[in-house]
Amino acid sequence: MAKKRNIIVGQSGGPTSVINSSLAGVYKNAIERGFDKVYGMLHGVQGLLDEQYVDLSTQIHSELDIELLKRTPSAFLGSCRYKLPEIHEDRDIYEKLFGILNKLSIDTFIYIGGNDSMDTIKKLSDYAILTGQKQKFIGVPKTIDNDLALTDHTPGFGSAAKYIGASTKEVIRDAEGLTYKKKMITIMEIMGRNAGWLTGAAALAKTEDCEGPDLIYLPEIPFDVEKFLAKVKDLLTKKDSVVIAVSEGIKLADGRYVCELGSSSDYVDNFGHKQLQGTAAYLANFLAGECGCKTRAVEFSTLQRSASHMASRTDIDEAFMVGGAAVKAADEGDTGKMVVIDRVSDDPYMAKTGIYDVHRIANEEKLVPRNWMTRDGSYVTEDFIDYIKPLIQGDYQPIMVNGLPRHLVLNMKKKR
Amino acid sequence: MAKKRNIIVGQSGGPTSVINSSLAGVYKNAIERGFDKVYGMLHGVQGLLDEQYVDLSTQIHSELDIELLKRTPSAFLGSCRYKLPEIHEDRDIYEKLFGILNKLSIDTFIYIGGNDSMDTIKKLSDYAILTGQKQKFIGVPKTIDNDLALTDHTPGFGSAAKYIGASTKEVIRDAEGLTYKKKMITIMEIMGRNAGWLTGAAALAKTEDCEGPDLIYLPEIPFDVEKFLAKVKDLLTKKDSVVIAVSEGIKLADGRYVCELGSSSDYVDNFGHKQLQGTAAYLANFLAGECGCKTRAVEFSTLQRSASHMASRTDIDEAFMVGGAAVKAADEGDTGKMVVIDRVSDDPYMAKTGIYDVHRIANEEKLVPRNWMTRDGSYVTEDFIDYIKPLIQGDYQPIMVNGLPRHLVLNMKKKR
Repeated sequence: MAKKRNIIVGQSGGPTSVINSSLAGVYKNAIERGFDKVYGMLHGVQGLLDEQYVDLSTQIHSELDIELLKRTPSAFLGSCRYKLPEIHEDRDIYEKLFGILNKLSIDTFIYIGGNDSMDTIKKLSDYAILTGQKQKFIGVPKTIDNDLALTDHTPGFGSAAKYIGASTKEVIRDAEGLTYKKKMITIMEIMGRNAGWLTGAAALAKTEDCEGPDLIYLPEIPFDVEKFLAKVKDLLTKKDSVVIAVSEGIKLADGRYVCELGSSSDYVDNFGHKQLQGTAAYLANFLAGECGCKTRAVEFSTLQRSASHMASRTDIDEAFMVGGAAVKAADEGDTGKMVVIDRVSDDPYMAKTGIYDVHRIANEEKLVPRNWMTRDGSYVTEDFIDYIKPLIQGDYQPIMVNGLPRHLVLNMKKKR
Repeated sequence: MAKKRNIIVGQSGGPTSVINSSLAGVYKNAIERGFDKVYGMLHGVQGLLDEQYVDLSTQIHSELDIELLKRTPSAFLGSCRYKLPEIHEDRDIYEKLFGILNKLSIDTFIYIGGNDSMDTIKKLSDYAILTGQKQKFIGVPKTIDNDLALTDHTPGFGSAAKYIGASTKEVIRDAEGLTYKKKMITIMEIMGRNAGWLTGAAALAKTEDCEGPDLIYLPEIPFDVEKFLAKVKDLLTKKDSVVIAVSEGIKLADGRYVCELGSSSDYVDNFGHKQLQGTAAYLANFLAGECGCKTRAVEFSTLQRSASHMASRTDIDEAFMVGGAAVKAADEGDTGKMVVIDRVSDDPYMAKTGIYDVHRIANEEKLVPRNWMTRDGSYVTEDFIDYIKPLIQGDYQPIMVNGLPRHLVLNMKKKR
């Protein structure tokens, strides 16, 4: 009997709307390329170390299941935030992991994730080379933050950007309707601790039927509270509703996060707990006091990374494509690499997959270039918008059951 | 030349996803019933007092515009929160308003709104009767809060409930994916100061593919912090991800809002402003301290009332229908009334319009009945869910332009 040739795939890091489309791409391509079994790690490498995995053929039974999987947000297999130790620090954990891989006759190991996940691919492929093992390790990019190096953009970003663009339009309309003979400031807080890609996506709301947000602040440029206040006061002399997008990660020149300004005392509540507050909530309180008008904070929160009901077709298709490309690369002998998306042309938008050594990607962080922000740092430029626009095009209609989008979920009773 | 017979329509109160579908219903029905002109008040009665209005034929040019209007969230004409004085307190304002109505040859006045707006209909129709004027005044219900008396439900509620159901599923999936060998509590804050209809809608997430939130707290029942904490601690012994829906308006037995607990001191921030905090943010901080695990707060915020991209077809159709029914009622001689929705049957769901004297509706608040909440007040019952389910069925696909939903907006250059 010929030796089995199996593949295992895992998901890691923060959720996105399309991380499962990459999983679907891996699964479909692996079946087509004749792998015997396709395993899924439960909760990534951390679960695998506990021998937590499923045979995906017990979970995906039809083309409809593939379609549901593409539309299911957050990690179908469960995620983890688990950083492998350096090889020289703890070889035991590597031996344990490779023992499990060998027991399952794993030929190919695919990991869908962001920076930390690419660090995992790097270490595992290094270890395999060091110890002469034959498994291949390929990374599939995934993060709403769009901060991975060398890829034009990351799967997950386009859908989050589309959700932010659509929700920003709705927030602006909501505010416009409520401001007659009175002023109101709305502050939207958008994810991105260090990189402002998602916050910049609020500019997508600037369309024929919407003037877009008035100000946009990314974390790449130090935030100046006094200049900000002056801009807002000036806008209030010209219009009634002022809408501002800020990244959760905006910082002062001295390095303090803006969200820390409101909680820098030792104040504790009735129950003895120190209170924390978001960036937008802090700024809304601050502006209410300084400008004397109604203000409100809108945090897009986790909704922005799991809103598969508003996913971009381009994004879902590309996520599927990079999943498939990872299997192909391993099948053709690659290891220690990450699939990337190369933009071939802007108009019409065309993209293809490429592949890079993961050592060049892991732990690098791609920020918004300075010249894609306006000189005074209060908006993004047309170049920035032109870059994002193709990534939010098209839709996958959710498969609605009883009025709500249907997802595919793990059936833990039939996992092997 | 025969006297003109014109109609004017306004919008008032908080935004919903479908308030413009009622406007479309008024417009279409008014044209079909042979009204000469259909005017729209800008920012309701408050704008009308400043003679701010548009001729709607300058804004709506085609069936496509009607379709766009149905899919446009927030008040197309602008809204206001304006309470008319009692007639005996200030007759001048009534004389001014009726002067404007007579100048525009208004035969019928339609007002789309919630409790306060019905108060406006009541006062204006009373004034017309007192002073022997011929205009007819009809109210069209609208509020995401679903707290109007005598109508089975209010237009706007179903779409907000659908958005909350879908987003709750996404939040639950997001949390599940992130909890392996660690605990996390997610608190979702949902609108509703006194009525818990929308918060209860989080239970819609309980479907074949989702276990739904673990606990649901409505403002109708006093919130007991100690019992709440005991419930959460018990749940944490059984599962890793605990998801809780709370109304923004939950209160302690002594009447204090939960959101006030965190800001009851004189603490001010670096800039001298007193900080305010939401209910969910407060409870997340509280539970982090008490349970020693990660917690997070998700506020659905204004997104829940303007998310027309996730509107319910039933809701949009009914909003259109009540708009039309208001015109019909006035055309047939009614005044001082509000259109209501009567549920004819549950399965299959069927509803028709009815009409009630607005004196029986204005300033009444319909709360969730006690027997639609569980005995211990930590969830809603099946009866509650059966009541909501028909209201979230079906979709209107957004009309997408360049990847984002398109709205219809006022063209102020051509307003008369």
